[in-house]
Amino acid sequence: MHKRVPRRQRLIEIGMDLFGNRSYEEISIDDIAAAADISKGLLYYYFPTKHDFYAAVIQHAAEQLLRETEPDPGLEPTERLRSSLRAYFSYVDRHATAYMALLRGGIGVDAQVAAIMDNVRQSYVQRVSENIMRGRPLSPRQRIAINGWIGFVEATSIAWLNQRCIDQEELCDLATAAFAMLLRGGSHEP
Amino acid sequence: MHKRVPRRQRLIEIGMDLFGNRSYEEISIDDIAAAADISKGLLYYYFPTKHDFYAAVIQHAAEQLLRETEPDPGLEPTERLRSSLRAYFSYVDRHATAYMALLRGGIGVDAQVAAIMDNVRQSYVQRVSENIMRGRPLSPRQRIAINGWIGFVEATSIAWLNQRCIDQEELCDLATAAFAMLLRGGSHEP
Repeated sequence: MHKRVPRRQRLIEIGMDLFGNRSYEEISIDDIAAAADISKGLLYYYFPTKHDFYAAVIQHAAEQLLRETEPDPGLEPTERLRSSLRAYFSYVDRHATAYMALLRGGIGVDAQVAAIMDNVRQSYVQRVSENIMRGRPLSPRQRIAINGWIGFVEATSIAWLNQRCIDQEELCDLATAAFAMLLRGGSHEP
Repeated sequence: MHKRVPRRQRLIEIGMDLFGNRSYEEISIDDIAAAADISKGLLYYYFPTKHDFYAAVIQHAAEQLLRETEPDPGLEPTERLRSSLRAYFSYVDRHATAYMALLRGGIGVDAQVAAIMDNVRQSYVQRVSENIMRGRPLSPRQRIAINGWIGFVEATSIAWLNQRCIDQEELCDLATAAFAMLLRGGSHEP
């Protein structure tokens, strides 16, 4: 039996490299075909437009991010959170351009791409609820606070990529502390 | 002397209404011309493309948001922050669709629109630094934490618009508490 990576999958991995280093606008269909060493015709067979290709790459990046940050059920909740955050910031570090593209725009970021990112955020709300809050029902305020905390992690990631002024472990401390404070703060309601 | 609102300005105000209720994709050049009661030719004179018009409307919205949330120097720092946040969430409430479009994508959100939003964020970092932190130099960790807090405020705004599960004053409490906690947390460094 052959164990070859299917061509569609291989094209997406090439796309991760390309969009990980240059923006949507900077990359042409010719660049993609050249990097994959296939004809434009064959590329169009798999992805009718550059945007279809981009959306598939973003979808792959989103799945990869979720997979790499999967909480480890063997750890206690605080360490489980810290370990996922460490994996998150490591992903941000290794795929900086793709991560920024995902969050910040570029021509390719339309409703379809925004929906992929919304789905990632909803997965994180779910995970936090199950793994860190141990499945206790969330109050409306806690639900808003968790959404806010995810925004906090994204915004610190972007600021960190732009400024690189603290190290990754300090960033991880900050996000872990923010979670404890915001969710403790979030439970002060009547 | 005439005191008429210049036509370009009036078109932008009409755009705020239009994009405040429907998305970029849903609005055509014909809709804009009809709402303004002018010919498409005249509209094109002011804004050569729908995207140019959209970018001008977003720029106007950004300036309006910054103006309405201007910190009041007569208040002490915590109340100054709370008062600006109240104005911010009030803006979010009144211009929900435009606010979501600004942050979440849609075809019109490209590099130009992302730059407008980046500029708003940088203005807020500056204001927080001057008005709330009283101009004391920020440590690298505090700078990252302030960026993160702005992300927190944006993400809670979006979650709030989608869920409307807490009232505006409670949202304001949450963001004020988050600021105090995150920036206190941010000063625990060596």
